[in-house]
Amino acid sequence: MTIENISNNKVLDGWHKQYNHQSNVLNCKMRFAIYLPPQATSKNKVPVMYWLSGLTCTDENFMQKAGALRMAAELGIAIVAPDTSPRGENVPDDEKQAYDLGKGAGFYVNATQPPWNKHYQMYDYVVDELPELIETHFPVNSQRVISGHSMGGHGALVIALRNPKLYKSVSAFSPISNPMNCGWGRKAFSAYLGTDPDAWTLYNTWSVYDASELMRKTTAQVPAMVEQGENDDFLEEQLKPNALLLAAKANNYPLTFNMAEGYDHSYYFISSFIDKHIRFHAFNLGLLEQQ
Amino acid sequence: MTIENISNNKVLDGWHKQYNHQSNVLNCKMRFAIYLPPQATSKNKVPVMYWLSGLTCTDENFMQKAGALRMAAELGIAIVAPDTSPRGENVPDDEKQAYDLGKGAGFYVNATQPPWNKHYQMYDYVVDELPELIETHFPVNSQRVISGHSMGGHGALVIALRNPKLYKSVSAFSPISNPMNCGWGRKAFSAYLGTDPDAWTLYNTWSVYDASELMRKTTAQVPAMVEQGENDDFLEEQLKPNALLLAAKANNYPLTFNMAEGYDHSYYFISSFIDKHIRFHAFNLGLLEQQ
Repeated sequence: MTIENISNNKVLDGWHKQYNHQSNVLNCKMRFAIYLPPQATSKNKVPVMYWLSGLTCTDENFMQKAGALRMAAELGIAIVAPDTSPRGENVPDDEKQAYDLGKGAGFYVNATQPPWNKHYQMYDYVVDELPELIETHFPVNSQRVISGHSMGGHGALVIALRNPKLYKSVSAFSPISNPMNCGWGRKAFSAYLGTDPDAWTLYNTWSVYDASELMRKTTAQVPAMVEQGENDDFLEEQLKPNALLLAAKANNYPLTFNMAEGYDHSYYFISSFIDKHIRFHAFNLGLLEQQ
Repeated sequence: MTIENISNNKVLDGWHKQYNHQSNVLNCKMRFAIYLPPQATSKNKVPVMYWLSGLTCTDENFMQKAGALRMAAELGIAIVAPDTSPRGENVPDDEKQAYDLGKGAGFYVNATQPPWNKHYQMYDYVVDELPELIETHFPVNSQRVISGHSMGGHGALVIALRNPKLYKSVSAFSPISNPMNCGWGRKAFSAYLGTDPDAWTLYNTWSVYDASELMRKTTAQVPAMVEQGENDDFLEEQLKPNALLLAAKANNYPLTFNMAEGYDHSYYFISSFIDKHIRFHAFNLGLLEQQ
């Protein structure tokens, strides 16, 4: 597992770095970004927050726009931002290059359907291959938390709910909370996972990637925090936080949910609450005595 | 002076807004962005920090990438970010669309040479027209500070040094400190102001837009802070901070200069030190008792 350094920026006494590497899981060359806070040294390995971005994003959006690095530098948490899909000329894309399918829209699932299944294995990439690579090459320990926005909020919740031993906490900004029941989710799941959601086997195939379904059934309890802007244009049609809230209530799940009045779906919203989320993760990592 | 609202994002309990307006000074339609902190109301008008961006930027780069809004919201300072040049189909651009001349590269001067002089009047736009418009339409008072990056750091220093009664303080990140003696500056000044810098009249024409020349001669003293990354790729060829330092020393000018080890020319650098600069401005505005 070799990685190729392609950029270095000093930020707040730490370093933002980008790398290319050949992904065995995705069968293509991938780029990721890491922020190493000043505390990270070979003798003082730090925990990692994985950040999963939303539709159309790359590794760059969060690092440039969220204002997250200040609190990460203060508390000593590394941040890793992968891309949102496999990339490259050989990777299939939507015929019309739609923003919500194909490149930039991997939905953090393992595709089972051709032509997607050869490359679109973002679930395994985020859960297994990328952390192994990060923990091999950087001064980080194996303590992980995970967060994300929109499609990436969906990914973060699904990944933490399915791997409660791997993540100390999970948070999400405006997540696609019930993808089985919204346009974005049904389009992506139909393409990547198969097209008959009423069949029992396919229901099972879809529901293991649906945060509301998972939260309703899980017996493990990874502390979760969700932030949602009340003026988000996608709130009713795509995000459906009520499904998640009902699931949490039914299963007595430790979900902290905040509906933020006046806020939208943008990075301006994320930057307004990212400090709170990083402190939430720091508390669950044992770095802070209170949030 | 009418303005057209084109976007609104709630950020940190305040509002980021973009507007279009017809500029009489620039003879074209211009866009600007304003951040109004939560303290700004018709009964509590707040001071304004003007931010001048660097080559290729628009009103958006600083607002999205600098992480500045948190401290502005905390201290109650509005931020206004204009574009970096006149815009539109009728505005002349460099023949080769070079990044360092024409659109995106107005250099905050009043051009005297055709074809530039009809539109490229960014000095008057920033000093007069834009503040008048801002103070007419928004809950701000007439207290101003100014800051900027690279070409915009040059603009901020020049504008404050030439208008010491209008600005309480000035700061700059990696400014083009001595544009008469670097490639970027000589190219732009030749085009906008005329091509014979050795002639005395033209020397005068150039020197009134050169921060080092102005700092060496001024009798007024606007408190100034400059941040420079030591690993900035443009440091030796274009930025030349030593000229500014020598001028400040010769004239006993109140310049706080920080050479930041390991930092580059990017917004990651700006985001690392923007809190310090906003606190410097807040102190000079009387909002903080110490920096």
